[in-house]
Amino acid sequence: MSSTPTVMAREMAEQPAVAARTLEALLPLRADVARLAQGRRRVLLVARGTSDNAAVYARYLLETHAGIAASLAAPSVATHYAARLDLSDTLVVSVSQSGETAEIVQTQEWASANGAATIGVSNDATSALATGADLALTTLAGPEVAVPATKSHVTQLVAMAVLGTALSPDVESLDADLERVPGAIAALLDQRAGVDAAVEVLEEASATVVSGRGLLMGTALETALKLEETCGRPVRGYSYADLRHGPIAVVEPGVAAVLVAAQDGPMREPVVELAGDLARRGATTVGIGGDAELARTVDVHVAGPDLPEAVAPLATIVASQLVVEQLARRLGRDPDQPEGLAKVTSTDPTRGTEEPVEEA
Amino acid sequence: MSSTPTVMAREMAEQPAVAARTLEALLPLRADVARLAQGRRRVLLVARGTSDNAAVYARYLLETHAGIAASLAAPSVATHYAARLDLSDTLVVSVSQSGETAEIVQTQEWASANGAATIGVSNDATSALATGADLALTTLAGPEVAVPATKSHVTQLVAMAVLGTALSPDVESLDADLERVPGAIAALLDQRAGVDAAVEVLEEASATVVSGRGLLMGTALETALKLEETCGRPVRGYSYADLRHGPIAVVEPGVAAVLVAAQDGPMREPVVELAGDLARRGATTVGIGGDAELARTVDVHVAGPDLPEAVAPLATIVASQLVVEQLARRLGRDPDQPEGLAKVTSTDPTRGTEEPVEEA
Repeated sequence: MSSTPTVMAREMAEQPAVAARTLEALLPLRADVARLAQGRRRVLLVARGTSDNAAVYARYLLETHAGIAASLAAPSVATHYAARLDLSDTLVVSVSQSGETAEIVQTQEWASANGAATIGVSNDATSALATGADLALTTLAGPEVAVPATKSHVTQLVAMAVLGTALSPDVESLDADLERVPGAIAALLDQRAGVDAAVEVLEEASATVVSGRGLLMGTALETALKLEETCGRPVRGYSYADLRHGPIAVVEPGVAAVLVAAQDGPMREPVVELAGDLARRGATTVGIGGDAELARTVDVHVAGPDLPEAVAPLATIVASQLVVEQLARRLGRDPDQPEGLAKVTSTDPTRGTEEPVEEA
Repeated sequence: MSSTPTVMAREMAEQPAVAARTLEALLPLRADVARLAQGRRRVLLVARGTSDNAAVYARYLLETHAGIAASLAAPSVATHYAARLDLSDTLVVSVSQSGETAEIVQTQEWASANGAATIGVSNDATSALATGADLALTTLAGPEVAVPATKSHVTQLVAMAVLGTALSPDVESLDADLERVPGAIAALLDQRAGVDAAVEVLEEASATVVSGRGLLMGTALETALKLEETCGRPVRGYSYADLRHGPIAVVEPGVAAVLVAAQDGPMREPVVELAGDLARRGATTVGIGGDAELARTVDVHVAGPDLPEAVAPLATIVASQLVVEQLARRLGRDPDQPEGLAKVTSTDPTRGTEEPVEEA
């Protein structure tokens, strides 16, 4: 392994600062978010890839803490089927790092035309997504050079937490926890507890599955996506339920099962049980986050943040990033430029804007 | 390979009859569905596993043809977080083969308590899901013995088409096509065109990805799930967009890429393009359904039904079943009793009802 830090590692190291900066910039906009949502009964989230995983967190946070029905849009319903839906009761929140992904921008335009109020979450206040929205929530990650999105994703998660708390009746109850996020990220980056052992397990694994549930589901999906795109391994992120409904049949000795969890909340116990089930099937289990019981149950444990479930996703993904970045190097891959990927993607290169655009 | 047909094959052969019977039984209930939906602004679908893949079809059909916002519920929001959501504007449609899956039944009860109108889709009119719903749509698949759900899934798709057309302004425009479904399924079962060649490709593949888009997305996910649970292979079903956003990096020579498509509709062309992209990355491509252009573009083509996109999913999955059943036998596996799986599953064995229940 090289001793020069990768660009990915340098951008990961910026996360305490950019999370704090983004939090400071977006918290004062909660009143605007609440005003825009007035009279709207549900939230529809529009995103792809890594941004989609941030949206999954927002969906659970909105439903479990704000009591607002939330779901993820199928952008093709807008871009290809040009469906006419009555969205006059809906707040549409679109998430794209660049704010220029053609299908996300088009879907936001479609949502406006169908009566929705719109919030555009991007890392560029001058982007089409930001300027076309009723309200822009602009993350302050700064330019991201490595292909795998790290700091831009963490600041998206900050924006999702701002959105969720803006619409919660007990809007300020999570604020003290939110303020602790940058410090929790810094502690994970500093300590790297369990990272070496997890990398060793994943390096040897014949296949890898990743699971998580509820508020940490998006973290599990993002962990799987990062392992797949950065380390070039076929990895699947499953919901806990979906893993039980069939795919658990492919878990056998040699398979690494990664479980992502928070230290508290109603999913704590089910995830510990799942770890036991997977171990009985012969999998080598890796826990990321969770509590002391999960740490005792799994073969290898990577420390997560000391934060409650509702905001734990903002920092837990950093523990996953540490594993991914080190595993990529161990495998002789360049984490900054994974084979076969570029930071420039669009779902439909032949449609929409003339040129492909960045999307994290 | 044994010359005695497997139970799975025998149940697949019943599909033209059970699809026709279910269609005949459910079409007259469309007026009841429409009445129940009156004043409701959106549909929330509740399902797991194979039933979830039927729900994905319903979601696209409702949004693209009925113009009604639809989404999939996260059952844990009900069962674990006990969230309070205002569902007084919502029609909740729960789908479970047995109608006894604890978390689906609990989520339906939660939906009622939160103000939703409820439809329970199951294969048993006496099930908790059917008797607890405001309206039951009962499929007539008959008892299903093989572990992989085939005929029960196809009749679920029939129920989803009945739901979608019941809420469409042009309610009867698809009726002539629906009537052709049983015959289209029979033709696929009879001709098995391309099945042998596809099985050969999948048998040799180092890894398999499955993709589809829009109305055929659920078919792609169900194809992946069946390959995985019945053939014991790690297979991943991706949306077209998600495949482009990262995971395409794992596509390399040796990988089989299965693309599921309809013969018409706005996704026809993008899927042909994706087939070309995957081939350029070295994948061996298998098309299931689609048109003549897709058939020319892929390495191996399995014939799909001669049906328009809106109802094509009801028959296209049968082409996938033929491949799965034959591949399982070729691999020396018993398709009726896949290793590590039972027809008895519940997401949380320790919660809800006292004993695990069947779920397809």
